[in-house]
Amino acid sequence: MTAALGAGECACRHKATPRTAELQADVQKRLNRAIGQLNGVKAMIDDNRYCGDVLTQLAAVESAVRRVSEMLLAEHMRTCVVEEIRAGNDGVVDEAMELVRRFSK
Amino acid sequence: MTAALGAGECACRHKATPRTAELQADVQKRLNRAIGQLNGVKAMIDDNRYCGDVLTQLAAVESAVRRVSEMLLAEHMRTCVVEEIRAGNDGVVDEAMELVRRFSK
Amino acid sequence: MTAALGAGECACRHKATPRTAELQADVQKRLNRAIGQLNGVKAMIDDNRYCGDVLTQLAAVESAVRRVSEMLLAEHMRTCVVEEIRAGNDGVVDEAMELVRRFSK
Amino acid sequence: MTAALGAGECACRHKATPRTAELQADVQKRLNRAIGQLNGVKAMIDDNRYCGDVLTQLAAVESAVRRVSEMLLAEHMRTCVVEEIRAGNDGVVDEAMELVRRFSK
Repeated sequence: MTAALGAGECACRHKATPRTAELQADVQKRLNRAIGQLNGVKAMIDDNRYCGDVLTQLAAVESAVRRVSEMLLAEHMRTCVVEEIRAGNDGVVDEAMELVRRFSK
Repeated sequence: MTAALGAGECACRHKATPRTAELQADVQKRLNRAIGQLNGVKAMIDDNRYCGDVLTQLAAVESAVRRVSEMLLAEHMRTCVVEEIRAGNDGVVDEAMELVRRFSK
Repeated sequence: MTAALGAGECACRHKATPRTAELQADVQKRLNRAIGQLNGVKAMIDDNRYCGDVLTQLAAVESAVRRVSEMLLAEHMRTCVVEEIRAGNDGVVDEAMELVRRFSK
Repeated sequence: MTAALGAGECACRHKATPRTAELQADVQKRLNRAIGQLNGVKAMIDDNRYCGDVLTQLAAVESAVRRVSEMLLAEHMRTCVVEEIRAGNDGVVDEAMELVRRFSK
């Protein structure tokens, strides 16, 4: 789950088992693309572009962001949730369900 | 619906009735915020931040993008769809339903 | 939109242009199937059936109900919304957007 | 996860840890209500009821079914997933993610 805080470390939480370099690179690439698409939508709005085309682009951004969430949730289940359950901290299950609820809104 | 193409204009479609300056400014502000949030997620991934916190941020981006889609779809219905129906082009209704389907995925 | 109330008619609203017999039959068939699936889930719960199998059945019910909503929303747009816009009652557009919002939750 | 098959038992899977009587009663009550609502929609279609009212009823059914899925998924995580992880069968995590994906469609 979260690594113990070292001296002087900020209070924000960190993963005990870091994400693989490969997952990080994939996620960063997808986030960059989503940012690019959002900048594209900004330009379309400036250019008074037709609603259907703007909405199609926004739908693509939404599913790109959702895909990243799915990847990170799956990885969270495989690492943090498994580790915490094995360590006897079942509270991680309720937290995971809360993330699933938000994820499925 | 879409304005007739002037000489030399690109083939992409434009709105016959432009969005108000107020709606454009609101949408641009929301898109900027979503881009900022996505950049925030990039930094969280670099910083090995805990999954729950990253997923919470991503859920916020998703609902921000969805809110923009909703605003643009509502405005599309009030302008393009009404205009086209009044002009006898009921085809705009099927296009609107296709946008609704994608919007509700 | 809604037919004018005849003497002694209940206050509930009715469609001005009735749904075709074909659409009604299709919707009734789908609703019957969804009811059958829900009764199937009731039996699975009684039988202590494994969660994955029960959740798969519930997901099928949810998409069946969603499909019926989509069919009725599309038909609503093609009949009520078009009629009301042609009659100058643009208020129907805001009502349609409210239905879309609920439909896309 | 699933209880071992006894002689003559059907091939379908059963939960190792049965759902509490309380959860079962709650789920059955909600399923009965959803079935009642679907029967209500059938009557509305027969009665040519206005689209907005029918769609509102269908949206209520969809969220009722979703709520049941959420309850069963949460219970699945607290029992089957925890048990299997403790027994060293991490495959249950991928199955849980597949259920989450379907649940969030």
